[in-house]
Amino acid sequence: MRDVKIGLIGFGTVGRGTARVLYEQADRLKRRGGGHVLLKAVADINVESLPSHLEGITLTRDANDILDDPAIDIVVELIGGTTLARTYILKAIENGKHVVTANKALLSQHGTEIFVLAAEKNVEIGFEASVGGGIPIIKSLKEGLVANRIDSIIGILNGTANYILSKMSDYGLLFSEALQEAQDKGYAEADPGYDIEGIDTAHKLVILMSMAYGMKMDLADVTCEGISRLEPIDIDYAKEMGYRLKLLAISHNYGDHVEARVHPTLVPKEHMLASINGTYNGVCFSGDMVGNILLYGHGAGMMATGSAVVADIIDISRNIMSGFINRVPSLSYLPEYIKDRQISPMANLRCPFYIRFSTLDKTKVLSRIAGILGDNGISIESVIQKGSETEDSVPIVMSTYEASEESVNKALAEIDSLDITTDKAVKIRILVEKHE
Amino acid sequence: MRDVKIGLIGFGTVGRGTARVLYEQADRLKRRGGGHVLLKAVADINVESLPSHLEGITLTRDANDILDDPAIDIVVELIGGTTLARTYILKAIENGKHVVTANKALLSQHGTEIFVLAAEKNVEIGFEASVGGGIPIIKSLKEGLVANRIDSIIGILNGTANYILSKMSDYGLLFSEALQEAQDKGYAEADPGYDIEGIDTAHKLVILMSMAYGMKMDLADVTCEGISRLEPIDIDYAKEMGYRLKLLAISHNYGDHVEARVHPTLVPKEHMLASINGTYNGVCFSGDMVGNILLYGHGAGMMATGSAVVADIIDISRNIMSGFINRVPSLSYLPEYIKDRQISPMANLRCPFYIRFSTLDKTKVLSRIAGILGDNGISIESVIQKGSETEDSVPIVMSTYEASEESVNKALAEIDSLDITTDKAVKIRILVEKHE
Repeated sequence: MRDVKIGLIGFGTVGRGTARVLYEQADRLKRRGGGHVLLKAVADINVESLPSHLEGITLTRDANDILDDPAIDIVVELIGGTTLARTYILKAIENGKHVVTANKALLSQHGTEIFVLAAEKNVEIGFEASVGGGIPIIKSLKEGLVANRIDSIIGILNGTANYILSKMSDYGLLFSEALQEAQDKGYAEADPGYDIEGIDTAHKLVILMSMAYGMKMDLADVTCEGISRLEPIDIDYAKEMGYRLKLLAISHNYGDHVEARVHPTLVPKEHMLASINGTYNGVCFSGDMVGNILLYGHGAGMMATGSAVVADIIDISRNIMSGFINRVPSLSYLPEYIKDRQISPMANLRCPFYIRFSTLDKTKVLSRIAGILGDNGISIESVIQKGSETEDSVPIVMSTYEASEESVNKALAEIDSLDITTDKAVKIRILVEKHE
Repeated sequence: MRDVKIGLIGFGTVGRGTARVLYEQADRLKRRGGGHVLLKAVADINVESLPSHLEGITLTRDANDILDDPAIDIVVELIGGTTLARTYILKAIENGKHVVTANKALLSQHGTEIFVLAAEKNVEIGFEASVGGGIPIIKSLKEGLVANRIDSIIGILNGTANYILSKMSDYGLLFSEALQEAQDKGYAEADPGYDIEGIDTAHKLVILMSMAYGMKMDLADVTCEGISRLEPIDIDYAKEMGYRLKLLAISHNYGDHVEARVHPTLVPKEHMLASINGTYNGVCFSGDMVGNILLYGHGAGMMATGSAVVADIIDISRNIMSGFINRVPSLSYLPEYIKDRQISPMANLRCPFYIRFSTLDKTKVLSRIAGILGDNGISIESVIQKGSETEDSVPIVMSTYEASEESVNKALAEIDSLDITTDKAVKIRILVEKHE
């Protein structure tokens, strides 16, 4: 049995984790029939030397040394970003090498180009580590759920945002305080924009939708709202109503069109997703045969992500050894069956809403608000109205029955312009999916 | 590409579900590169005719018509039980056919015989459906977590027992009432022994341990306690202490020896397993690289289990098409690396305990009990003592810090023999595993 040789580009956190998993689990991988996988070379522009356990492995500053090395079977791209990473991956494919990557930003924006070229060159692209860190989400979708039409995807896919919201919910922290804590603990980058604005979550959702529905990846149409403007007061009221606030990726499959949105969402506290706290990730799939499935675990981290990268390496190695490349289509469906699908406009969304109005403490305020909501076809499910916070403003908090995004926006615009409201209404969508 | 031909033995709930999944998802399976999988024949002694969507498929009363048919590639055994099923599976393997089965009772007791013969004949055994219904647990263990030493398995693996405990917890039902409800809804068999006594859970635990640890299957040493003697009073007190009662399969891997036990367990309410209710199943694995992973979904049911059976069929079909049989070792580890491992005796277990004493309402009762516990090295974490229930007996409820099973048993035997106790103490183990 021949060795399968790996070239690793990018020796940051996940790169080092991957090298460690390969080293520490080498014996186990053989006992599990994973063949002989050998790390041959590492490329990183910022690394002066490799740790002692990687003795004998080539270190280079030039990724081309790996990309042009005919002995390398699998290129593992872990530099991130969408420029150099794209160039390297395309070159690796051109050179007939298989690719393993954790790069969700790249795949969600240049996936079509990459997968089309990979199909043409008959090489594999492994990307388990791009969504949900060490959780075997991609393999479950591609293989375990092969006999299912996936009807929905609902997930907590960013550990940083989930950590911040968990801290805000459990300790009453302000967003800025929780973010600072996440940064102090190393869970958030110095520039946390992608995490807190939902962009990283959207990248992952696009990858999951592509595989679940057999559709082309397109980041452009995903509606994306982040968590940076959320206030503790809304978290508290929502808790009183039986909800926990989460940043969710949500997609429903309606056949010819699909939904794709990332936004703060109130989750009923009995729902499994409401119990996913701290930096953990989780995703629910609803399959027409299997019903609801949830996969949960560490969505990031050196060793967890390394575990997923190595699982992909082993998978591809087994195919190299058997000579049966692309045993399972990289994107679940054979390329010729991957379709364009329309993403439905946000205005068409229907769900229940949490709404907090800031109003003057006057008589008939509630009846005027309720009247406008009613005129727009929005029914109130529950109301909380308490004593005044300040002399000038009192909150009126309510949950609605299912209503359309469009009519809620219209009603709120009207209410916001009244002389009895002191600030813009706050609106948070409520998850309806039943999950027993 | 040639057709892969399937013979189905057993046309009960899961058999009919499997046939329906194959039929309804036929087009999807092709689009997903699963090849051409054809149901060729069905054997069932009790079935007079097949449903109309299976027109053209042979129905026989004699399983040997399938086992002896050289055109059949994969035999799907769904009759259950450990006698005929064993005979059929061994014959199928002898005849060079691959096997897919949902039969956990058979695998946990005759697994070694079956897998040894399968290795010898170079055929595959698929058994995703044997644990956790439609949840891709087996595939995740075998492939997704390939680069992990599994350190523990903690699971809710029987939907019937979980349904009963959920009803007892949420509605204060007696065990007998909740069981009746489960039977009325078709979730429990007329003879529910295997489900409520934890035996079915033990079967599944043995299969998971075998794959997770690379050890020989051995049902004999698994400690197994059921739920039929549980009382609502303990569920209520435990709830007051922040716990939810679950029938758990628990195994820790200590290298040379492992733990294997099935018993009612109090789960801290923040733990993900505490949120798994009704007929749902879930299992947590702790991997040395990946950390904690939880997989959740329907653990039974016609279509969910059919989904798992078909996933196995597709997996094996892909290997038939590539000619690379046993691409992944059936039991995760190559046969030569599967070892015997000792199961540690229950007396050695250390965990916190919930204990309820029934005592006379006299002074110094608590101090005498605490004294005996203390003499046995058991420290009390919290106590609930309320007014008398009846004139003769009052409950004293406590949770302990981690203590050994042996010392708790010794202390309770001593306390039970005192003249101040009116009934045997009730002891329930508490889960300690951290899961955040």
